[in-house]
Amino acid sequence: MSLRFTHETLPQRVVFGPAADHLAAEVARFGERPVVFGGAAPDLLPGAPRHRDVIMHVPVEAAARARAFAAANDADVLVSIGGGSSTGLAKAVALTSGLPIVAVPTTYAGSEATNVWGLTENGRKTTGADDRVLPRTIVYDAELTLSLPVGLSVASGLNALAHCVDSMWAPRADPINQALAVEGVRALSGGLPAIVRKPGDLQGRELTLYGAHLAAVAFASAGSGLHHKICHVLGGMFNLPHAQTHAVVLPYVMELNAPGIPDRLADAFGPGGLARLRAEVDAPRALRDHGFREGDIPAAAAAILAVVPAGNPVPVTTDNLTDLLRRAWAGEEPR
Amino acid sequence: MSLRFTHETLPQRVVFGPAADHLAAEVARFGERPVVFGGAAPDLLPGAPRHRDVIMHVPVEAAARARAFAAANDADVLVSIGGGSSTGLAKAVALTSGLPIVAVPTTYAGSEATNVWGLTENGRKTTGADDRVLPRTIVYDAELTLSLPVGLSVASGLNALAHCVDSMWAPRADPINQALAVEGVRALSGGLPAIVRKPGDLQGRELTLYGAHLAAVAFASAGSGLHHKICHVLGGMFNLPHAQTHAVVLPYVMELNAPGIPDRLADAFGPGGLARLRAEVDAPRALRDHGFREGDIPAAAAAILAVVPAGNPVPVTTDNLTDLLRRAWAGEEPR
Repeated sequence: MSLRFTHETLPQRVVFGPAADHLAAEVARFGERPVVFGGAAPDLLPGAPRHRDVIMHVPVEAAARARAFAAANDADVLVSIGGGSSTGLAKAVALTSGLPIVAVPTTYAGSEATNVWGLTENGRKTTGADDRVLPRTIVYDAELTLSLPVGLSVASGLNALAHCVDSMWAPRADPINQALAVEGVRALSGGLPAIVRKPGDLQGRELTLYGAHLAAVAFASAGSGLHHKICHVLGGMFNLPHAQTHAVVLPYVMELNAPGIPDRLADAFGPGGLARLRAEVDAPRALRDHGFREGDIPAAAAAILAVVPAGNPVPVTTDNLTDLLRRAWAGEEPR
Repeated sequence: MSLRFTHETLPQRVVFGPAADHLAAEVARFGERPVVFGGAAPDLLPGAPRHRDVIMHVPVEAAARARAFAAANDADVLVSIGGGSSTGLAKAVALTSGLPIVAVPTTYAGSEATNVWGLTENGRKTTGADDRVLPRTIVYDAELTLSLPVGLSVASGLNALAHCVDSMWAPRADPINQALAVEGVRALSGGLPAIVRKPGDLQGRELTLYGAHLAAVAFASAGSGLHHKICHVLGGMFNLPHAQTHAVVLPYVMELNAPGIPDRLADAFGPGGLARLRAEVDAPRALRDHGFREGDIPAAAAAILAVVPAGNPVPVTTDNLTDLLRRAWAGEEPR
């Protein structure tokens, strides 16, 4: 092995603790006239003007309204409270205004830990990376995720898990983002079953939030690996549901890339590995249950083959991809 | 466990690879008129003015000369090439000028990965933390460390190892800097024996540089734990040599704090643990060989007891501290 890599560490302040204790002080570090973006989330910053018009995928019209709201209130700091859509809206405002964001996530989506923004116009999503949209501070308060139903929590958490795993062999994978990803796997492997066992307890929620944070940091740094390319093709060509597709496909990608999986990743899953975790959270098992048809496999394999990331640890061929898709379609026991 | 912590991630670009391939481009990201600070290091930036007047612990007079040199050359970017003293000199210039630093370390000291500066006046060292002195880019070229003799490499690497271990229970220890510290232990446990076995090979040097980077990041974030407090007292009161003291004391601190050592830290040392590593690098074993006397133990214990960091995982008492010092003095086999 020769260590050759370039890693960019992005600056961020990460606070784990009750928002009631921390949010006001964190906001005050950046400004005196906060505005809040958040639809359903609790009112954590009483008195601050609040924009509730939060729409998934940030349509450009919604971004324009949010920018006008910030300007009308002479905002000097943006506070997002909610899931990826609230964070995304604050990012859209920061992208043009340069205002700092303090993010309070209420799901495990991870957008708060990346410099990636997204805007949708006429049904097409444009994304980009800009350090101005990276939230300056994140306040992670697990209490706020208690209202996220178990099913959604598991789906969101397994998606974060897929980010961690894919970071091991993504195009910009390096030992630093791999170390963070391994730590993320450790946290999610402990946190997700704990949420299923005791949805009202904070412990599993905290671990899952922590894992989701690391997943986002690692994935933003490493880029999309084979797993995400496969899921993206399946979602785009066959309209398969996002979370279920990720949950089903992940073990088969790990199976294919097994020679590229370092021991410490395997260790991070704990005894029983991903199979134990999937059983404990009752993860979806077969793509056939989610709209994928056996006859779609050849077209899917061809489309995926065209976008396999350079540097995948195992050569990807029509044969092994077809086998992967067939097994994922049927829900065969991963090896 | 409840996750309550605040972690600051500092922005840095980290390039592992030959300086000949990367340095000019990295410097050009920040300016057009670089000046180089470095005494003995090779000339990696031909044509750039070079200041060779590098003195350990950065006396304020040396800092003044370095600042004048940068100003006289109308520098817009500072390049340090060398060990901690070269980095420290560039930091002294950045502290007052705000100029960006590109650091090219040639030892395992780790200063290049922290925002900590130090200046010495009338024999007294003042240190502080300021984000302006954090190098913007680090270029880690293992070739440049080949000239570091094995003994110095081991001493410097064991010091980095101590930074990693102490980060597990230091006052600002958190799961993120712990994860980085564990990865640092893994790298150093592999790298240091490889340097001893084949001092001319790059592989051990690369791993050790990588481990030293993580050690510095983790330690700067977590602060000084029990190990460093002990070594600081022993060095200050009894003038014991820095590197040897660290190398001898570390296993006894791990022994004392054993209940606070997570499995993954133990795993990171690999089979045989720290004992195997110490044997392979022929680490110093007893403080009695380095100037510490048995009669000094009570005074040392009393002085250390006064500075034990809050949050050490095991209560520290005169008794267990005396036992630790006695065993380290005699070089008894750590448990």
